[in-house]
Amino acid sequence: MTSPDRPRAYVIGLGLIGASVALALAQVGWSVGGEDRDADVLRAALDAGVVDGEPLDDTTTLVVIATPASSVAALASEVLARHDDEHLLVTDVAGVKGSIVAQVDDARFVGGHPMAGSEQRGMAGARADMFRGCTWVLTPTARTQPTTYGRLHGILRDIGANVVAVNAADHDRLVALASHVPHLLAGALMNEAARAAEQDAVLLQLAAGGFRDMTRIAAGDPAIWPDVLFENRAAVVQTLASLETRLGALRTALEIGDRALIGEGLRTASVARRQLPGRAFNSERLAYLRVAVSDQPGVLASVTMAASELLVNIYDIEIAHGIEGVGGTLLLAVDADQAARLLEALSKLGFAVGLEP
Amino acid sequence: MTSPDRPRAYVIGLGLIGASVALALAQVGWSVGGEDRDADVLRAALDAGVVDGEPLDDTTTLVVIATPASSVAALASEVLARHDDEHLLVTDVAGVKGSIVAQVDDARFVGGHPMAGSEQRGMAGARADMFRGCTWVLTPTARTQPTTYGRLHGILRDIGANVVAVNAADHDRLVALASHVPHLLAGALMNEAARAAEQDAVLLQLAAGGFRDMTRIAAGDPAIWPDVLFENRAAVVQTLASLETRLGALRTALEIGDRALIGEGLRTASVARRQLPGRAFNSERLAYLRVAVSDQPGVLASVTMAASELLVNIYDIEIAHGIEGVGGTLLLAVDADQAARLLEALSKLGFAVGLEP
Repeated sequence: MTSPDRPRAYVIGLGLIGASVALALAQVGWSVGGEDRDADVLRAALDAGVVDGEPLDDTTTLVVIATPASSVAALASEVLARHDDEHLLVTDVAGVKGSIVAQVDDARFVGGHPMAGSEQRGMAGARADMFRGCTWVLTPTARTQPTTYGRLHGILRDIGANVVAVNAADHDRLVALASHVPHLLAGALMNEAARAAEQDAVLLQLAAGGFRDMTRIAAGDPAIWPDVLFENRAAVVQTLASLETRLGALRTALEIGDRALIGEGLRTASVARRQLPGRAFNSERLAYLRVAVSDQPGVLASVTMAASELLVNIYDIEIAHGIEGVGGTLLLAVDADQAARLLEALSKLGFAVGLEP
Repeated sequence: MTSPDRPRAYVIGLGLIGASVALALAQVGWSVGGEDRDADVLRAALDAGVVDGEPLDDTTTLVVIATPASSVAALASEVLARHDDEHLLVTDVAGVKGSIVAQVDDARFVGGHPMAGSEQRGMAGARADMFRGCTWVLTPTARTQPTTYGRLHGILRDIGANVVAVNAADHDRLVALASHVPHLLAGALMNEAARAAEQDAVLLQLAAGGFRDMTRIAAGDPAIWPDVLFENRAAVVQTLASLETRLGALRTALEIGDRALIGEGLRTASVARRQLPGRAFNSERLAYLRVAVSDQPGVLASVTMAASELLVNIYDIEIAHGIEGVGGTLLLAVDADQAARLLEALSKLGFAVGLEP
């Protein structure tokens, strides 16, 4: 039974994002129903209390469609056609926006895309705090009513998201560059290496950290990507073509001995990468410590306890292993103001520690 | 003064790798001299006891040339010409091997390449245990005497390296694929994004983990790369061309709607990436825990202390932040046998924790 004094939402598609939206809305006072075309998923969601079993009725003021991109437009249109309440607000969470926004021509629909992890996983990973601090793109159109947009903006702020309004076409171009094309690149590089490894198995021993970083996303679930790539086909094709041109220019520069072009390209890339905003922090304020560590229980605890005792917050941590090595280097990002204190404390504990230049 | 009862080595070039080789050799009983063309670097090495001040004389049986790739052949030839002792063994650590091996036509020379971090840094980061568990490629030729190769192999094993013999041309092809071309790719992608960000600054907010991973190596010191890329020009050009062909095929598949080709490429890449051998461990034995954490001093310490108390070794650790988020997810790699114990302990401590599928 829906509660008369709580606003009512309904989530269609209870995967990682849909279930997290349901949990997040419930935490800020919504009553939330939902459905999934997979009966087992729905059953699990009901059992776990992620959604209740009430249907989508006229008490519902918010519908979130969290299904794959290719099914969003039809589902949104159907919901909007079935419910003519002008207070209904329908949104979605698909990673591609242009085609959806073009198809769902209704003032009550606002396209959305929470940038919370590119690899889709099941409901088991859902969390009410998934969107705290997450950038949530909304793609209003000329038809979108300001009050509708404002309502959705407020709801998303309530669950902790940073809302950004972007034109749908711009969004698609940007995610092609920031996500879709990188995925294709990672796959192409991995396949190139796999072919070489058929002849020289030692290649895989030579694959150092850079190669691992660059191919990591290729390990993701391949099933969800063709859908996304084809939905965003125009922008992906354009970005791929532009990258091919860049790579061709680099190849020509190597062939004709144009050292200046190679050097300049690497220089501008290095500057741009270092300026990339940090993930959960402003990277200008951070210093990076390198700590040599052995792979033994307790080593990480010693290092992190030392930081904790000094009230130094570790913003980022990474272990760089030697290939097949037994030890490694811990890279810690801390406030620049606090780096010297932590460095001194770790040195006293006997760690070989240095500050990244 | 060199000691008559200890074998004598001499290291030319005292950067990160050269100084680490000197420290590693000293630790297994060698007396080690050395030089650097930078007088300040040499002074620092002498002051820190990394090398002694004795010259390269006839008591020396091992010379390691640890200078940039383009200077190795001339230095090696000079050393070999000056010392006609047949027991002298000369090797190098450059990242490109074909041109060096072709130029240094001497039975006493064996080319080498320790795969210990692609970003060169100064002597300050040098460590005696740098090569423990590291893959060290040697590139013997038809002229190389088995006894010479065997001696060098033994020395490198002594300092902890896993020695792999590879044909010099194969080595260059493999590092083009595993390191040099990935570096160019990362730079090209970063430059493409930087250009787009000039118009749409929001792009940088949309750059999620995959993009960060793929461009990370582009932040490295750009100065060392043109040298390496031009030394290995033939293999880099060939690999770039092959990748351009792959990207062009993907673009065409998107244009003509060939879903099967896109899907198949992503599938084979995903399988290959998951089979990539782990860094410091056999990944088949590992389980991955996800722990929701806040960015507060002490959170990491709590998690790692819990692991330490259970004698659970953390093989790998990563913080996945939400974009501009205030919290994040800690990804821990631990022995599969121990994962359940750690999961239970962290749950009891109040952490939201899950096992990666």
